[in-house]
Amino acid sequence: MEPFNDPQFADIEAAARRIAPHVRRTPVLSSVELSGRLGVVVEFKCENLQQAGAFKSRGASNAVFALPAETAPRGVVTHSSGNHAAALARAAQRRGIPAYIVMPRGAPRIKRAAVEGYGGQVTECDPTLAAREAAAAALLAETGATLVHPYDDPLVIAGQGTIALELTGETTPPDAVLVPVGGGGLLCGTALALERLWPGTRVIGAEPAGADDAYRSFTTGRLHPQTNPHTIADGLRGALSARTFRLARAHVDAIVTVTEAAIIEAMRLLFEGLKVVVEPSAAVPVAALLEHQVVARRVVVVLSGGNVDLDALPWVTGAAPLR
Amino acid sequence: MEPFNDPQFADIEAAARRIAPHVRRTPVLSSVELSGRLGVVVEFKCENLQQAGAFKSRGASNAVFALPAETAPRGVVTHSSGNHAAALARAAQRRGIPAYIVMPRGAPRIKRAAVEGYGGQVTECDPTLAAREAAAAALLAETGATLVHPYDDPLVIAGQGTIALELTGETTPPDAVLVPVGGGGLLCGTALALERLWPGTRVIGAEPAGADDAYRSFTTGRLHPQTNPHTIADGLRGALSARTFRLARAHVDAIVTVTEAAIIEAMRLLFEGLKVVVEPSAAVPVAALLEHQVVARRVVVVLSGGNVDLDALPWVTGAAPLR
Repeated sequence: MEPFNDPQFADIEAAARRIAPHVRRTPVLSSVELSGRLGVVVEFKCENLQQAGAFKSRGASNAVFALPAETAPRGVVTHSSGNHAAALARAAQRRGIPAYIVMPRGAPRIKRAAVEGYGGQVTECDPTLAAREAAAAALLAETGATLVHPYDDPLVIAGQGTIALELTGETTPPDAVLVPVGGGGLLCGTALALERLWPGTRVIGAEPAGADDAYRSFTTGRLHPQTNPHTIADGLRGALSARTFRLARAHVDAIVTVTEAAIIEAMRLLFEGLKVVVEPSAAVPVAALLEHQVVARRVVVVLSGGNVDLDALPWVTGAAPLR
Repeated sequence: MEPFNDPQFADIEAAARRIAPHVRRTPVLSSVELSGRLGVVVEFKCENLQQAGAFKSRGASNAVFALPAETAPRGVVTHSSGNHAAALARAAQRRGIPAYIVMPRGAPRIKRAAVEGYGGQVTECDPTLAAREAAAAALLAETGATLVHPYDDPLVIAGQGTIALELTGETTPPDAVLVPVGGGGLLCGTALALERLWPGTRVIGAEPAGADDAYRSFTTGRLHPQTNPHTIADGLRGALSARTFRLARAHVDAIVTVTEAAIIEAMRLLFEGLKVVVEPSAAVPVAALLEHQVVARRVVVVLSGGNVDLDALPWVTGAAPLR
């Protein structure tokens, strides 16, 4: 056994078998013009076209369908207002078990609607981390349900690793694979899979400069908390956990940071050049290419999600870059 | 030989072989939630993800690569300010021959930029049909190039038919396949292919009520001109030609019309529910589903293109429905 119960390559293979009926094999798209604009040959693994609009469906489905038959009926709990919440509600609905989702009061109506659309039961709490954790703890005690953390969970990390597993059957090894970094679940799952399957390919995380805990932790070798995150990339405001920090240090090649202006420009480039809808977080690796943070001739970018408010696209609202 | 030199099924097969190196095999996407919203199981053949952002790359590539070696070097001509112009310029560039594109003064800068980005040579003219045709005739006389009409051309129609040919290898026969109708190239190519391959599947054209020449021609059996088209679906303002009218009457099952409000709603549904960027014309068949114009349990919609001004999305600008 590995110390810490960290996920292994075999766990990613098991996850792929487990979640196959519940998630979509997403297409790999590219555009000659977009590659030209970015100065590097780029292919995109389109998890924005995944079920529930984000890669989170993979990790959540893996955690839900790995639950033992005895405990599963009591359901699952998470505290998240983002894509993980909707993905967990969807997976629970498919297994026929309850999903209890703790959300801060004032979370966007569209996010709550997504959770409820999949039959998730929302509990509101005050918008502080302490209140969220207290509400989740109370739900766990009351229901006997299982906590499924958005990223600090071996099954969730293994589920996210299935993207890379698929990818290796869909294209040839590039110089680097780029993914956005929030809590690090996608980054670590990708690195674990590719270390085995494409050992010559670098795995690089891209993070907003305004929420750069992973960059600081990775480069200093000491886990930094996320303090006052300030970015349009709402999916990337979380912080590495002790587990994802350890895995990232062991398996990831680099973490780079990008400006808010580059995120918005990248988002628009993806709408225009690839004809897909992406949320700001998904544009962060492309922002890293725009800002020449990655030296490579050919890369694959994982587009993490497409859940964005179409009434408030940043180039329309004229949202000033935050940094 | 068929009278009129109309395209045959074998011409579509030949087109598929000819254009394979020059176009993309586009993905078929679907969304359980979107099907639920539309009340019918829908799959989408995503030609908005085609090269140059529209299905027009198929017909244009077929016409350009079918040119005999003797005449090809003199190039190709068209008068169009839309997706066909960019597609023709791209195909000509790939064959290494000139493309002369007649565009009305005042055409959107973005459309001219797309043509020039593929090396097309733009000639401006007054914004009337007579001026366009005169300018094209002058260019043809001067250069000895070949005219490639956007739809009134057997090779172009056969090229558009390759979408349906691909589709039959990608899913099972639905009750109906829905495509937008402008000049009728896509509609007739699709109908010719499916009559052979999926004889039990209806082929239905969807047209804006504000540009309903095809509907009127199809239902009355007499070719009506397009008079004063008035629709946000800028790709569908053309009219059937004698050829596409004849082919539609012989091979198409129905043509339905939709309101402007439904087009805008459908466009937004596709952005939100399918996470793809579509132009208004591509949303027209989905508008027909919203307006219950098609009785079916399962359909495939061809999403025709994704070239849209992202600064002027109709739900953002609050464009009042035109009808």
